[in-house]
Amino acid sequence: MADTVKAAVLTKPGEIVYEERPRPTPGPGEVLVAPEFCGVCGSDVHYFVDGRIGDYVVESPLVPGHEFAGAVAELGEGVETLRVGQKVTVEPGVPCGRCARCRSGRYNLCPDVIFAATPPCDGALIELVCYPADFCFPLPDGVTTDVGSLAEPICCGVHTAERGSISLGDRVAILGDGPIALSTLMAVQASGGRVVMLTGLVAERMKLAEELGAERVLNAAQEDVVAAGKALDVDVAIDCAGAPATPQQCIDIVRRGGRAVLIGLPSTDSTPINVPRCIAKEVDVIAVMRYANNFPAAVELLRRRLTDARKLITHRFGFSQVADAFKLVHELRDGVIKAVIDFGK
Amino acid sequence: MADTVKAAVLTKPGEIVYEERPRPTPGPGEVLVAPEFCGVCGSDVHYFVDGRIGDYVVESPLVPGHEFAGAVAELGEGVETLRVGQKVTVEPGVPCGRCARCRSGRYNLCPDVIFAATPPCDGALIELVCYPADFCFPLPDGVTTDVGSLAEPICCGVHTAERGSISLGDRVAILGDGPIALSTLMAVQASGGRVVMLTGLVAERMKLAEELGAERVLNAAQEDVVAAGKALDVDVAIDCAGAPATPQQCIDIVRRGGRAVLIGLPSTDSTPINVPRCIAKEVDVIAVMRYANNFPAAVELLRRRLTDARKLITHRFGFSQVADAFKLVHELRDGVIKAVIDFGK
Amino acid sequence: MADTVKAAVLTKPGEIVYEERPRPTPGPGEVLVAPEFCGVCGSDVHYFVDGRIGDYVVESPLVPGHEFAGAVAELGEGVETLRVGQKVTVEPGVPCGRCARCRSGRYNLCPDVIFAATPPCDGALIELVCYPADFCFPLPDGVTTDVGSLAEPICCGVHTAERGSISLGDRVAILGDGPIALSTLMAVQASGGRVVMLTGLVAERMKLAEELGAERVLNAAQEDVVAAGKALDVDVAIDCAGAPATPQQCIDIVRRGGRAVLIGLPSTDSTPINVPRCIAKEVDVIAVMRYANNFPAAVELLRRRLTDARKLITHRFGFSQVADAFKLVHELRDGVIKAVIDFGK
Amino acid sequence: MADTVKAAVLTKPGEIVYEERPRPTPGPGEVLVAPEFCGVCGSDVHYFVDGRIGDYVVESPLVPGHEFAGAVAELGEGVETLRVGQKVTVEPGVPCGRCARCRSGRYNLCPDVIFAATPPCDGALIELVCYPADFCFPLPDGVTTDVGSLAEPICCGVHTAERGSISLGDRVAILGDGPIALSTLMAVQASGGRVVMLTGLVAERMKLAEELGAERVLNAAQEDVVAAGKALDVDVAIDCAGAPATPQQCIDIVRRGGRAVLIGLPSTDSTPINVPRCIAKEVDVIAVMRYANNFPAAVELLRRRLTDARKLITHRFGFSQVADAFKLVHELRDGVIKAVIDFGK
Repeated sequence: MADTVKAAVLTKPGEIVYEERPRPTPGPGEVLVAPEFCGVCGSDVHYFVDGRIGDYVVESPLVPGHEFAGAVAELGEGVETLRVGQKVTVEPGVPCGRCARCRSGRYNLCPDVIFAATPPCDGALIELVCYPADFCFPLPDGVTTDVGSLAEPICCGVHTAERGSISLGDRVAILGDGPIALSTLMAVQASGGRVVMLTGLVAERMKLAEELGAERVLNAAQEDVVAAGKALDVDVAIDCAGAPATPQQCIDIVRRGGRAVLIGLPSTDSTPINVPRCIAKEVDVIAVMRYANNFPAAVELLRRRLTDARKLITHRFGFSQVADAFKLVHELRDGVIKAVIDFGK
Repeated sequence: MADTVKAAVLTKPGEIVYEERPRPTPGPGEVLVAPEFCGVCGSDVHYFVDGRIGDYVVESPLVPGHEFAGAVAELGEGVETLRVGQKVTVEPGVPCGRCARCRSGRYNLCPDVIFAATPPCDGALIELVCYPADFCFPLPDGVTTDVGSLAEPICCGVHTAERGSISLGDRVAILGDGPIALSTLMAVQASGGRVVMLTGLVAERMKLAEELGAERVLNAAQEDVVAAGKALDVDVAIDCAGAPATPQQCIDIVRRGGRAVLIGLPSTDSTPINVPRCIAKEVDVIAVMRYANNFPAAVELLRRRLTDARKLITHRFGFSQVADAFKLVHELRDGVIKAVIDFGK
Repeated sequence: MADTVKAAVLTKPGEIVYEERPRPTPGPGEVLVAPEFCGVCGSDVHYFVDGRIGDYVVESPLVPGHEFAGAVAELGEGVETLRVGQKVTVEPGVPCGRCARCRSGRYNLCPDVIFAATPPCDGALIELVCYPADFCFPLPDGVTTDVGSLAEPICCGVHTAERGSISLGDRVAILGDGPIALSTLMAVQASGGRVVMLTGLVAERMKLAEELGAERVLNAAQEDVVAAGKALDVDVAIDCAGAPATPQQCIDIVRRGGRAVLIGLPSTDSTPINVPRCIAKEVDVIAVMRYANNFPAAVELLRRRLTDARKLITHRFGFSQVADAFKLVHELRDGVIKAVIDFGK
Repeated sequence: MADTVKAAVLTKPGEIVYEERPRPTPGPGEVLVAPEFCGVCGSDVHYFVDGRIGDYVVESPLVPGHEFAGAVAELGEGVETLRVGQKVTVEPGVPCGRCARCRSGRYNLCPDVIFAATPPCDGALIELVCYPADFCFPLPDGVTTDVGSLAEPICCGVHTAERGSISLGDRVAILGDGPIALSTLMAVQASGGRVVMLTGLVAERMKLAEELGAERVLNAAQEDVVAAGKALDVDVAIDCAGAPATPQQCIDIVRRGGRAVLIGLPSTDSTPINVPRCIAKEVDVIAVMRYANNFPAAVELLRRRLTDARKLITHRFGFSQVADAFKLVHELRDGVIKAVIDFGK
């Protein structure tokens, strides 16, 4: 057994170097996981390109990657729920388990969460990584680890659907066509909702949205999104775009008493909102921050819609090509939806 | 029995004239109410001064007044739950009872609601008015009709507390010191919450807030509201001020996973919101539009805090002095909090 | 236009006679509906066989039938949302719209509801019937009126799933294999849940449950239901059987903090419950009474699972054969699941 | 500093002996607490008299006591939120913080909870005890440790009110007059509810219930509880008695759509429930198991109603008199409501 494992490390903007790191040892309740696939997230690319996202700054070398699935390589003391060789997808944020937020079930808001690939915590673009067994979810038969690595973005969609209280028959509009929008689309459907409208800008993504069952797909640059939405008796509108106008569009689209759900992060700190209009319809504006307690449902969704989920993966890179993958996603080239790093390639 | 009844009528901005109107007759399920006290609401004053509030325009003569209590004067066919002479407070908006909003219990969002003193519907500054018996709530022993006329603004507070899911021990910040803010203060306390902070601008109102139990009262013009709030571990922040900055202040004040409740109507259509900050804390931003199913609780609150509630009434005018009352409230003179019209004066 | 319409009338236990009744005229806001298909419900059969269900006694001639769909035949004054000839399914209970229960959105609990085919209110086994337009739901393309008549039992399932707060990934056990159990099965799935177990007694029904996606189907007479359920990590157990033992089985099956949902009506007034065990797991025991606000979701479910829904209809009778249909269902012969009356046959 | 501390130990039914135990040392994140007052709970008495409660059997010597408040005596590594000498009340059950129940916020259902004075875990009738700092809640000014020891039973009431979704104006009936019933009474009031009725059997307790604000107090042995309750339009009925008839009485008392909350543990495994009646009113039957996340609200309640809370403490015993205290409570003598052990006496 080698003493070191190879890691992809972001050392400065635009540069990924490969380093040998000491082989990690699982503590009590932990397991060692060998990632097989790791998706490239927009946040990885932001750190790669800009060296920061808001207040999170890459100040020392960082291992990117937090959307991953792999095989259990070793069990720490006391772990009985997993076995070596088992394929798992991993929830990348480990909360403290003791603070008021954790105790009340909203551990995504734990101030002391250790979240993979968020400075200063390293991520999963490394050959072996330790995680608590409780954050490793076995993949059902048929769900391979490439699709399993999608559990994380799908989980964002699942939490979004939950925060939006989607229930059977709800008519939902989704603004945006990125991986989170498409994950949300599937999560809304799996929760009983109808995606009566989705807006996008990228042809390949809009096409996939349609294949996945969005009933109407609009080009956000060319059509009147609010007018279209208003005609559709929308219960819930979800902003996955984070554009300056999209939060208000959500408020304007929904029916009286509807919900506007915000998961797309605007790049600006000042988004104009029409409060009187929001009050006149008594809208709930619901923000979404990552997820809590949603991984089992995300895995279940992958099981049900395996073929559809796989369509999100448009590009596959080897472990040696991390920088290439990041660049592709940054430039939104070649109709990329989700690029994944294949550790075995 | 006279064939006509006297009404105070807003004929053009700044002018109230008194007219004789045909005596109304209660239909089946309705009762005739003789208002004894009617509070002056900011909306009455807006129509009086500007002739409009947003899209609601006074295009024909309008009887103002919708915060009222009085005596049942006559029973329509089939009314068995009330008796002549009984003192009642009246819920001023009557919804259709059939649309999707009504059927789902959120009748405050009924598009066909008939709401007193909202153009083109007449209000309660008239000697007799018809209402469905189901919208007339008997006042408990000791609750006189002057205090009973406060049920409507108190009800706004009760609905606000409900929308904010206030529960026992919740730490609440209220921004604003007007009648709705003070009503919300009492409703929050009655729902188990602590008002750990309230911000204001008017000395008399801030003083009353303190008497009513606000634990800390800040001058919004002189102190750093957000810094003060952040130090207080606030679960729910409620904007009753509707100033350009107050919605975002609510978001900034609350703890992670907190709720920001918006009832104060800004005069602007564009309020800047920091969406990333809202998302980082996963805040719920909850708009409040009037009330639904809250009158019984509002009456119960008046019963419990009779003495405190009475302190809201700072000025009393006779029925012939409606214009004077409106002017006083408009000019915020003489430490006015709530002015009421006394039909017997 | 004929002055009279033909009705099937239950005059005494076991006897259906056909009478001419005056042609009804739709009032304002109502429409006249010509039923095309009407399902036979267990309650119809109870009245037919026993002349009563609990406190509801057939004391005068009663028109049975409340699961129906048909064509709009005439519009009452002011109806603009429907057109003559349109195919609709009808929500058979019309609440008062004014009482506390109605106003709070739970109109299924209205004490003054007028519910078709519940003594003393007549039902839908008549050639023409009046209903408020708000209780008539247009059938989507492809949903024919035979399937449309299933909206009512499906709606029971939808309300059950809603009361059980079924959400994505919930693991659900259903006890029972009757039409309501099978409707609940589909509603649970459509709400995101997995039916990990269903118990039954009738081979044809159990076979259909399996086809519809129940993951494990048990014979309740031969297998240890509780042991099987406990092994499946069940979040919600739903009693559609109403047997003496099934409510407690639900409590025993669910995980800690799970929900036991009761829709099956026991024939006994005394069901033994182990309260300490219920407390130790902090179970919610949720009763289900008809439905409220669920018809749109039921129609949407039919649209999505048209082929599956149609499988529920195992027998079709002409309008002249109502008694035969009732007898078949009473005797549970020929693998009957749902029998419908076809007015055109 | 002594190496040992004295503990009261239940060695066999009816016998308390005092033993020296090794002085405990707080681990990281823990503090050492010196109990000053510890209440006697019914469960302590059950173990003392019967040696068991259901499946929990005292198989080895057990230190009783789990309702306690005291002073922080020593800080473990990393504790920054408390200081030595600070008065705290202690939440006696420490969950694992990692399982599905813990992660979803319902840690009272953690299968691996370590709960004081529940076999085989020792309790607080010992001079020093270790607890995680997160489970020690500072007492506000004025709340002394005798009253502070009531936080635990009050917390049961708070959780009961929360599980019953008590909100402003709710009309509540409480069945029972023991310490939990009286705690629930105060928690219901503090949550905005009205206790319109309480039933009891013990004169002193019923008298206190009246003093605390129960609007009507009935003798359960002499009056028709259900008839009385039905006349009072009860939203929520809470069984704190755990008698064979009381769960069904709760169901019968509440209005349509009401809630029946069960916290009183019956001594029988078979309580008869009328399911059809429960369904006809669509009642929620909500079981209550201890509490989760409620200690801060319980402490807040003590702060608000200090004088009232103190009235619950009717008897005080020294640390050497534990057996006497247990006997008194067992025999329900001398109008005992809550007896406490005073470590300083």
